[in-house]
Amino acid sequence: MTEQAGGAGHERRSYPKGVRRRRQILESAIGLFGQRGVDRASLRSVGEAIGVSHTALRHYFSSRDELLVEVYRTHEALSFSDTQAAAGAAVGEMVEAAERNRSIPGLVELYATLTTDALQEEHAVTREFVRDRFRSLREMLAARIESGQRAGRIAPDIDPGDAAALVIAASDGLQIQWLLDPGPVDVGRSLSILERLLPGDPGFSARA
Amino acid sequence: MTEQAGGAGHERRSYPKGVRRRRQILESAIGLFGQRGVDRASLRSVGEAIGVSHTALRHYFSSRDELLVEVYRTHEALSFSDTQAAAGAAVGEMVEAAERNRSIPGLVELYATLTTDALQEEHAVTREFVRDRFRSLREMLAARIESGQRAGRIAPDIDPGDAAALVIAASDGLQIQWLLDPGPVDVGRSLSILERLLPGDPGFSARA
Repeated sequence: MTEQAGGAGHERRSYPKGVRRRRQILESAIGLFGQRGVDRASLRSVGEAIGVSHTALRHYFSSRDELLVEVYRTHEALSFSDTQAAAGAAVGEMVEAAERNRSIPGLVELYATLTTDALQEEHAVTREFVRDRFRSLREMLAARIESGQRAGRIAPDIDPGDAAALVIAASDGLQIQWLLDPGPVDVGRSLSILERLLPGDPGFSARA
Repeated sequence: MTEQAGGAGHERRSYPKGVRRRRQILESAIGLFGQRGVDRASLRSVGEAIGVSHTALRHYFSSRDELLVEVYRTHEALSFSDTQAAAGAAVGEMVEAAERNRSIPGLVELYATLTTDALQEEHAVTREFVRDRFRSLREMLAARIESGQRAGRIAPDIDPGDAAALVIAASDGLQIQWLLDPGPVDVGRSLSILERLLPGDPGFSARA
């Protein structure tokens, strides 16, 4: 199922067995964080929880930060492949991503941890991952907004880059408010207010 | 230097000298976090940096979490009193708060740390503070949005609570993107896109 020949992270030493094992570890860690949250997860405590020796874990991930980044990256890659149908709408995409995350609050927490770590100098790996992720998300959403502008759905004087940053920020911030207070906060309802300014292509939308 | 008799936070034993000393400590800590960031700040490391003994610090703050919460609360109270002029506009308020924070990135980082800690069970004090802060901010902004609806500036079918959560989320998320990538991200520019949906009272605005 996962006998691909390349491995993310350390391209140089990735043999099929190693890649498979690394992938299994990441999947166990996704399960672990999904259930239990992250807090001060160390390589050692994660290894204990998923039944992998510290030495084995060190073989695949050089640091706690690298493990956390790879867990999130893998989770996001897995979720994303399910939802190519949502392509087209900038806001709709974020609403769907947020809805997927509802079922796994531990991963919203992991994401918040990565983002906070990224602000701190000591976490260079995390910083690079989070910054690059924001950059590519902004580019992807800005392209959708531009296409909405060409189609005449979105006001031409909205800056696509500024609007893309806004949509991502709103989605991130709403998920945190929702985790803390699921009663009054509804990520999808709040985000959909942005669809008044940034409507998706109705023909493209996965949500009727 | 530390012959204080009480501490706020514990209202019961708050005598003037203790209150003053506690306030001095908080102001030193605001300065410290503003310059240097928070990361794994412990009571001990903060005490060392601001020249207060660990024992004295423990007298005023029962834990690291309580210190971080009180530092942020004090910072916010100090900033807020400067800007009553901005009252009236939901989005304008958040734009101004974000602009104040630009000068002190360490406090944006402290805020991100509090928010992330709040998601984790072990941090009950932080969780309560952050949840309550979000609740009261949402109420305040929702009231402004309702008043904009009564005045006919804001569409009546926008839910004020959902929109309030959206504005706060956008502001929080944009500050993080900006800290990581100050070139392409401009908090005020992105947030002002929301003013198309939620314009403030032009007569009230502090920003011409």
